[in-house]
Amino acid sequence: MLKRERMERIMRAAHQNQLLVTDPCAVFYLIGEWIYPGERFLGLLLRKEEKPVLIINSLFHAEEDDQIETVYYSDTDDITALLARYVKNDEILGVDKILPARFLIPMMERKIASGFELGSEAVDFTRAVKDEEEIALMRKSSDINDRAMALFKRLIHDGVTEREVAAQTMEIYRSLGAEGFSFEPIVAFGKNAADPHHMPDDTVIQEGDAVLFDVGCRYHGYCSDMTRTFFYKKGPTPEAERIYNLVRSANEEAEKMLKPGIPFCDVDKKARDIITEGGYGEYFTHRLGHFIGVEDHEYGDVSQANTRLSEAGNIHSIEPGIYFPEILGCRIEDLVLITEDGYEVLNRYPHDIEIIG
Amino acid sequence: MLKRERMERIMRAAHQNQLLVTDPCAVFYLIGEWIYPGERFLGLLLRKEEKPVLIINSLFHAEEDDQIETVYYSDTDDITALLARYVKNDEILGVDKILPARFLIPMMERKIASGFELGSEAVDFTRAVKDEEEIALMRKSSDINDRAMALFKRLIHDGVTEREVAAQTMEIYRSLGAEGFSFEPIVAFGKNAADPHHMPDDTVIQEGDAVLFDVGCRYHGYCSDMTRTFFYKKGPTPEAERIYNLVRSANEEAEKMLKPGIPFCDVDKKARDIITEGGYGEYFTHRLGHFIGVEDHEYGDVSQANTRLSEAGNIHSIEPGIYFPEILGCRIEDLVLITEDGYEVLNRYPHDIEIIG
Repeated sequence: MLKRERMERIMRAAHQNQLLVTDPCAVFYLIGEWIYPGERFLGLLLRKEEKPVLIINSLFHAEEDDQIETVYYSDTDDITALLARYVKNDEILGVDKILPARFLIPMMERKIASGFELGSEAVDFTRAVKDEEEIALMRKSSDINDRAMALFKRLIHDGVTEREVAAQTMEIYRSLGAEGFSFEPIVAFGKNAADPHHMPDDTVIQEGDAVLFDVGCRYHGYCSDMTRTFFYKKGPTPEAERIYNLVRSANEEAEKMLKPGIPFCDVDKKARDIITEGGYGEYFTHRLGHFIGVEDHEYGDVSQANTRLSEAGNIHSIEPGIYFPEILGCRIEDLVLITEDGYEVLNRYPHDIEIIG
Repeated sequence: MLKRERMERIMRAAHQNQLLVTDPCAVFYLIGEWIYPGERFLGLLLRKEEKPVLIINSLFHAEEDDQIETVYYSDTDDITALLARYVKNDEILGVDKILPARFLIPMMERKIASGFELGSEAVDFTRAVKDEEEIALMRKSSDINDRAMALFKRLIHDGVTEREVAAQTMEIYRSLGAEGFSFEPIVAFGKNAADPHHMPDDTVIQEGDAVLFDVGCRYHGYCSDMTRTFFYKKGPTPEAERIYNLVRSANEEAEKMLKPGIPFCDVDKKARDIITEGGYGEYFTHRLGHFIGVEDHEYGDVSQANTRLSEAGNIHSIEPGIYFPEILGCRIEDLVLITEDGYEVLNRYPHDIEIIG
C-alpha cells in the first residue's frame, strides 16, 4: 500500500518533478512491501501530480493498489523503452544514487528525459524523519531487543564460545516476535571486545572477561541496534571500571543534550570530549552514531563531519566506545528518538555495570 | 599481482581506450586480491598502452605491484577530482555496468571524459574464456565438491533435518581445503526438492524421500557447483525412476554435444527436447545452465535466448531438472569445460541412481 504522505514529503523535497526510486529499502518504505529484484530492474517512479508507477519483473509480485500503477515486464522486455512510456522526456529525471550504469546509460543514450540528476537526497532526508507509524515500530523493535538482551546474557556459562552464543540468538529473537536479525550479532569475549567489528569465533569465555553484545533485530521491517558490555563472574579491574564509567558517561551526557536544532557534530563532540578528558580519546575510533530505520545503517550520522541540525523524528544510535587493541574494549549503545522538545531513549536495558554468570 | 595477459585480452576486446572496472569480482580476476569496498569507491582504471591505476580507500589495502599504480584516498577526498587526474577528458570512458549513479553522475557533470559508455562487456567476454590458471583452479574446486558430495550423503540418517545437514557442510568443505561456500547449500528432502530454490528448513527425512544436494565451494576464489539427487533407504517409485532417467539422459546427451562453435540455445534445446518428449517439458522450468568462475553465476548462460557460440575455455553448468510442485523434484548438475575439440566434465561424481542411508 502506497504510503502517500511519505511520497508527498519526498516530492516536496525533490528538485525534480519526476524521481526514479530503485533502492529496495526505499521502495519498501514507500509501498510497505519487500521486493528483492536481484540483478533485475525494480523502479518506483514518483511524479508530481500524477500516480506513481511501479515497474517490476513478472517473476516478483506486488499487492494490487489503486493508488499505484503497477507495470510488470518480462526478462525479454526492453526496460528503457518501458520507462520511456512513463518518464517525461522534456523534464529532468532524478535517479537513485544506487542505480547501476547498466540501466542509467541506456536511459541517457535514448534521452528518455531532458537530463539526469541524483535525486535520492529527497528520499534520504524524508526517511531520516520517522513518522508515527515508523516510531511505533522502532519502539517495538527496540523493546524486543531489550528483552532479548536479558536472555542473551543467560547464555553465558563456563566453556561456551562466542559462536555458540551467537547461534542461539536468532531463536530468541523469533520467540519474542522479531522476523530476524537487523545485522549479524556481535558477541565478543575479553580482548575480542577491543575490535569494534569482531565476528563471533571459537573463543571460550574466561572468568573476568568483558562480554560485549552488539545486537539487533527486525520487527515489521524496522531495525533495532543496541550494545551492552557485561563482566563474567568477576567485576571489572579498576582500569576497566574507569573505562566503563567514562563510556557510560559519554553515552548519557550525549543523550541528555539531544533535542531538535542541535548540530550532530556537537553531540559527537560532547561524547568525544568526555572520553578525551578521561585520557582515552585516541581509543574512541569511530563516529558516535548512525541513523537507522528500515536499514540498520541509513543516510545520516552523528559525527564530527555532520554539521546538520537534528530534527524531531530522527532516530539514530549513540554508541561511544573505548578500544585498547588486544587488551579490552567497551561500548554502550542505545537508539534514541528526537522528540519535539527533547529525546526518548528507545532502549530501556540499564547501563549499570553488571556481573553475569 | 596484475594478471597482465587478462588485462590485455580485455583491452583488445574493449571499444574504448580507457575502461573503469569497479566490480570487486572483476578486480579480483585482474589483480588476484579480494577487496570489498562496501559503499566506498573501488576502481581499476585500465588504459591502452599505459599502466593501470587502482583507486582504493585507505581503509583497505592492496599488495604493492610494480605493474599497477595504486592510489589511496580517504573518506574526505573528492573521488571525481581524483579520477579526473587519471582519466583522459578528451576520450570516451568505458564504465562498469554496476557503477552506481552516485559515482557516475558526478563524473559526467564534471566531464572527466568526452563521453561515457558501458564498457564491461569486454570484461565479461574475457572472463567467460578461462585461461590455464583458472581451469586448474576450477578443476580443483570441482574435485573438492565431488569428494564433499560423497561425505554429505553420509550425513543423512533417521530423524535428521535439512537444516542440520546443511549446518555440517561448511566444516566438510573446509576439511577438504575449500575456503567456503560458493553459495548457500541447498539440501531438500522429498517434495521440497520440487522447489528449485528451496532453502534448508526443519523438514525431517522420511524413508523413500528424494534427497537433493545442490552445493558448491570456493577454492582460491574459484567456484564449484553440482547437484545430485539420491533416494533414502528405498529406491524411487516407478514414476520417480522414469523422471530420474529422463533428467540423467538430458544431462548426458547435452554434455555429449559440447564443443567449440555450438550455439548455447542448441544445447539447451537438446536437453529440453528430451524432457519434453518424455512428457515432462512443462516441469523443466529454468534454463539449462549458467557460466561460473570467480562468481557462482557469471555473465553468459545456456538458454533458449543465447544464440552465441561456445568457445574453448568456457565453463558452465549443465543442470536439467523436473519439478512437480508439492510432489517431487530431481536435478542432475555438472560443471563442464569446453576444450579445443570437445568437452571435459569437471564433476566425476556418478549419475547413477543411488540409495543412501
